[in-house]
Amino acid sequence: MVQAGEPGSTRPGGRTARVRAAVLAAAGDALAESGMDGLDLTDVARRAGVGRTTVYRRWGTVPALVADLLQDMAEQSQPRVETGSLLKDLLANARLVRETLAHPRQGRLFKAIIAAATCDERTARALHRFYEVRISEWAPCVEQAVERGDLPEGTDAREVIRAVSAPLYYRLLASGHPLDEATAERCARAAAVAARAGVYMR
Amino acid sequence: MVQAGEPGSTRPGGRTARVRAAVLAAAGDALAESGMDGLDLTDVARRAGVGRTTVYRRWGTVPALVADLLQDMAEQSQPRVETGSLLKDLLANARLVRETLAHPRQGRLFKAIIAAATCDERTARALHRFYEVRISEWAPCVEQAVERGDLPEGTDAREVIRAVSAPLYYRLLASGHPLDEATAERCARAAAVAARAGVYMR
Repeated sequence: MVQAGEPGSTRPGGRTARVRAAVLAAAGDALAESGMDGLDLTDVARRAGVGRTTVYRRWGTVPALVADLLQDMAEQSQPRVETGSLLKDLLANARLVRETLAHPRQGRLFKAIIAAATCDERTARALHRFYEVRISEWAPCVEQAVERGDLPEGTDAREVIRAVSAPLYYRLLASGHPLDEATAERCARAAAVAARAGVYMR
Repeated sequence: MVQAGEPGSTRPGGRTARVRAAVLAAAGDALAESGMDGLDLTDVARRAGVGRTTVYRRWGTVPALVADLLQDMAEQSQPRVETGSLLKDLLANARLVRETLAHPRQGRLFKAIIAAATCDERTARALHRFYEVRISEWAPCVEQAVERGDLPEGTDAREVIRAVSAPLYYRLLASGHPLDEATAERCARAAAVAARAGVYMR
């Protein structure tokens, strides 16, 4: 049997891949609708039109299913944009994060998973890996700016990318302020200005 | 009967104030220990050494109790520091937020409340009010920097203070990276540099 969560093992095509896609979509829908408390493997199987025993055999537990969903989300997320301009690249990143968190289903999905991660260690580890993958995808934009001489040598590229996202997550989870386009632009500009000033030097 | 949650009505002194303090401390302990799922009014009454009917009559529901806890946390939080230097003021703010979130009990308490706010509207409103109070407390540091000519006219003082906190919350809730002193310093420096560059102009 193909192991769920083995990168590249389940896509593209094939019955295993179709089952995984259907189950993860159903799990995401359930999470977005009613949070972690509403996530139940039997209900996910029913929504996905997949046998209950298949879901239990392959994922077994809710945290395992959520971990696989996060891995899939990381794999399916948009690749970085490379425009040759640090500010434009960071703007593209900020807009992508903003659109994701402001999206009705995706915003609720992230809230549900982040909430679950506060009290479940396995979900927390899967969430941290998700961000590692996403930050790794976008960090080269900053590394290229260093190579071009736009940013000081020794800039922590990953920390710059995290700085772009942070105010958007703060709005989603803490202050409740709207995730508007102006905020996304400010996130990108603030990270670029601070990076140029050497704030993110290692 | 004094209404719970009416500012200034229950402090200082008096039996009502002592009951409130004991109940809110017990609620905070329970939340920090086992999250929102572990919060039960009967258990809180027992921990606080207060009659069960008192707790039910005065707070009635878990969201009402959490809302009152957040109001108390806002009232009891540390006042701003005014050093006459924007960077030093923001550093004081960043260190306070870092210490709070890195504190074993307080960090878990914030995680539990933020998680609850993702799926309960009343808790979300109380959480947003908590941040409004805290941001209002610290915004004058930025306003004074504008008056001194350290920052451009039209700077959104509240957004600068939010920018200091955001990367710390991102670490706590999303990336899982440590809440270290170096990060707090970087938060303050990044916000000051971006504010000077006019990123936070209204």
